[in-house]
Amino acid sequence: MPVKIYSNEFSVSTRGETEIIDITGRVESCVHKSGVTTGHVLVFSPGSTIGITTVEYEPGLKKDLQEAFEKLAPRRASYHHHKTWNDGNGYAHVRASLLGQDRVFPVKEGKLYHGTWQQIIFIDFDNRARTRSVTVQVVGE
Amino acid sequence: MPVKIYSNEFSVSTRGETEIIDITGRVESCVHKSGVTTGHVLVFSPGSTIGITTVEYEPGLKKDLQEAFEKLAPRRASYHHHKTWNDGNGYAHVRASLLGQDRVFPVKEGKLYHGTWQQIIFIDFDNRARTRSVTVQVVGE
Amino acid sequence: MPVKIYSNEFSVSTRGETEIIDITGRVESCVHKSGVTTGHVLVFSPGSTIGITTVEYEPGLKKDLQEAFEKLAPRRASYHHHKTWNDGNGYAHVRASLLGQDRVFPVKEGKLYHGTWQQIIFIDFDNRARTRSVTVQVVGE
Repeated sequence: MPVKIYSNEFSVSTRGETEIIDITGRVESCVHKSGVTTGHVLVFSPGSTIGITTVEYEPGLKKDLQEAFEKLAPRRASYHHHKTWNDGNGYAHVRASLLGQDRVFPVKEGKLYHGTWQQIIFIDFDNRARTRSVTVQVVGE
Repeated sequence: MPVKIYSNEFSVSTRGETEIIDITGRVESCVHKSGVTTGHVLVFSPGSTIGITTVEYEPGLKKDLQEAFEKLAPRRASYHHHKTWNDGNGYAHVRASLLGQDRVFPVKEGKLYHGTWQQIIFIDFDNRARTRSVTVQVVGE
Repeated sequence: MPVKIYSNEFSVSTRGETEIIDITGRVESCVHKSGVTTGHVLVFSPGSTIGITTVEYEPGLKKDLQEAFEKLAPRRASYHHHKTWNDGNGYAHVRASLLGQDRVFPVKEGKLYHGTWQQIIFIDFDNRARTRSVTVQVVGE
């Protein structure tokens, strides 16, 4: 079978403030629609105050992860970025740069391949509610 | 030459406790078996208490990296996750979410392309010994 | 259209010391040359004291990010790596391992897909000036 590319996207409504949203089901749905049996899936979001990663999605770990980001780049610390734009979200940019907005997963037997306790999450670090966009691209046969 | 996908996997025995294991040779072997000359190779592991990254693999840096993770998410701190499952490995989940379980490398002239001092490592953050699985997928021509 | 692979590279002159360089334009140029309309682009650099990520590229955030890395792995702390090679750049290796040297972005309508304020940056954590190499590989149709 020839290798092909399938591209799709979906939107995520967030409240910001390091809200963590499980997007595994929506990525799985894109993989299913792609018809790809074996390949990679890229999960990417355009934006500089967000992140994509994995976690065992349960309420305790969501808090633990939020606290880890608060330690890495505290919400109320002083940021040079605030002098540039005065928008108060320097912490959100720093967290986003450290985490990244791209993750790649295998596709095996027509399905997103991941651990039972390894969900894909979207994190909005910014200080306001927003609708965000996620791009899912599958390459494979 | 048409682009193709090659998928393989191998297992890694770990003792946990942020043990760091060099998997470069095993990834190189998968790239060789794929027959791909030019392309990408995805190195991924299913699990929520592990990570994949690169380092100059020498004993000093292994300790330095372990100490950096201890600072990021201390082993004996209090985690909300423990209230959910009482399994004491909240630090391992947080470290894994910050690092990620996927890395992508170029394949050039039939070989894994990386720096001389840039080895691919598997880190098991969990608090017990385990056999882990690593998936290697090559896309290219 | 059949899926193809396009591979290119460029060099970056850095002064080290966590200098941050915007490479978005050079990645865009590689995507344009590839002729790929829909696909992925891998941005990778061989080396163990460097990193690739994204940021809103403005002077304030560059300083904020440098300060975040100084907090993560301080320049003048004690590192076991120094006992191995005595080269004083343990902090640079640790920062590089935490951040990674690979990022993947979508290509849509023949262009690198990223946010308006989401530039791709190369960070040289090492303690000396250097010429570095960045590989850009596009897979798609």
